[in-house]
Amino acid sequence: VGFNRTMLIVADNVNILRPEMARAMADMDPVPIIQMVRRCVAAGAQAIDLNLGPLTRAPREKMTFVVQNVRSVTDLPLVLDTVNPVALEAGLSLCSGTAIINGFSLEPDKLDRILPLAGRFDADIIGYVLDAASRVPMTEEAMMSTAVDLFEAYTQAGLPPGRLILDPVVVPATWPDSQRHNRGVLSLIRQLPELLGTPVRTIAGISNLSSGGQSLGAKIILECAYLPMLAAAGLNMALMNIRHRPAVAAVGASRMLLGDIPFCWPDLADAIE
Amino acid sequence: VGFNRTMLIVADNVNILRPEMARAMADMDPVPIIQMVRRCVAAGAQAIDLNLGPLTRAPREKMTFVVQNVRSVTDLPLVLDTVNPVALEAGLSLCSGTAIINGFSLEPDKLDRILPLAGRFDADIIGYVLDAASRVPMTEEAMMSTAVDLFEAYTQAGLPPGRLILDPVVVPATWPDSQRHNRGVLSLIRQLPELLGTPVRTIAGISNLSSGGQSLGAKIILECAYLPMLAAAGLNMALMNIRHRPAVAAVGASRMLLGDIPFCWPDLADAIE
Repeated sequence: VGFNRTMLIVADNVNILRPEMARAMADMDPVPIIQMVRRCVAAGAQAIDLNLGPLTRAPREKMTFVVQNVRSVTDLPLVLDTVNPVALEAGLSLCSGTAIINGFSLEPDKLDRILPLAGRFDADIIGYVLDAASRVPMTEEAMMSTAVDLFEAYTQAGLPPGRLILDPVVVPATWPDSQRHNRGVLSLIRQLPELLGTPVRTIAGISNLSSGGQSLGAKIILECAYLPMLAAAGLNMALMNIRHRPAVAAVGASRMLLGDIPFCWPDLADAIE
Repeated sequence: VGFNRTMLIVADNVNILRPEMARAMADMDPVPIIQMVRRCVAAGAQAIDLNLGPLTRAPREKMTFVVQNVRSVTDLPLVLDTVNPVALEAGLSLCSGTAIINGFSLEPDKLDRILPLAGRFDADIIGYVLDAASRVPMTEEAMMSTAVDLFEAYTQAGLPPGRLILDPVVVPATWPDSQRHNRGVLSLIRQLPELLGTPVRTIAGISNLSSGGQSLGAKIILECAYLPMLAAAGLNMALMNIRHRPAVAAVGASRMLLGDIPFCWPDLADAIE
């Protein structure tokens, strides 16, 4: 999957936490999933995250159902987002070379059961900068050392750095220590090439920032402020709600300002939610 | 003037380039100036730039007229923005300790006639990162070395680093090399403390970014993307159109995300122009 530039948009809209997606999964009803994917493509998604939850019942069938229906609509890279290795395996065998595993961490179960899938299917994989108990490191130092540990666990599995995508884990702005942590996310992204001695791509989940907020407008203001900071720090992929049009416009404007795409005057319509 | 934090807003709305301000200056009519300053204060300005042009006729009287009328409305710090040293002197003598000289550069005439005013009035002064012919250095290396030259010219005049405010000169996004230069602005701000060996405050003129644009909405999208990048780089003051409410909201959200002010959910009304 050719993600080399700054900053591509991965839509997080196909998500089991949304009632209509949960219903579609439960009923094996393809229509709401296909509709949502069509909307994501139309809105400019450059990859689509399929957040299917733990898939405790019929993981193989459910993943196959979703991937086949999504593939009937788009050839965009798919981010297979589940902790279930059986489901991941089913999804990866359906879209070899165009899927990203989401993801592993230093949690022993994930190192044992999910990380090896990256090698078996020659797939990109997202690694979360979380400790072995899946806790978020809150200081910049702890984030740096956790990122190094994760990178070492990855390379010790014999996998190529070019296939790893690190996620420094944006935390909700309402957390007491969020400001320090989310500043640390920017530092980590900026310093990662020097820290690891090799370029490794990065992804960040933007919706997490405004988790718990009641007002869509307030969420979007936060996203619109944090996205340009992430772009300037060198983030490769923003996992975000692609239907937040001002946030998508902020990504486009950021990419123009940073020289990733040619300059043209932004379309005002994009800034209106 | 106590500017220590990231990122305060300096309103650029009192500007001779606006027809109603030019008219007020020509007619010595205080009403439009007082109205504009009231709007700036109400919109949350933390300082006000008075861009009065060259003031070739009656510099002392015109500056006195403007400063006295502005001071009848607000005690906010005033940025005295003219190349005319006689006008600057008149303004500085009226608001000692609460005015900022805007500004000097490596241009010999400005080093000779404007820089000494900073010492005489014990005032903050803005220094433009421009070469001796007032050209914008376009590469990051040229910007760095110009900033060092400017800092040396400043300290050789016997002035304290704490009174200097560097302006790395944002260029219009339509310029062919603007992306490289405006990325360099971010690098310069970030690296300045290390480069100079001492913390020096920074200011950037945001309106310049979208100069030449026809659509207010498109201008605001660009400003809303660049301002968070500047805030994350550590910019101290954003000289900007305070009536661009989404851009002001972007500054507020940036300051919250960076931990400069406590978190609260942004007010949706601020994002609507």
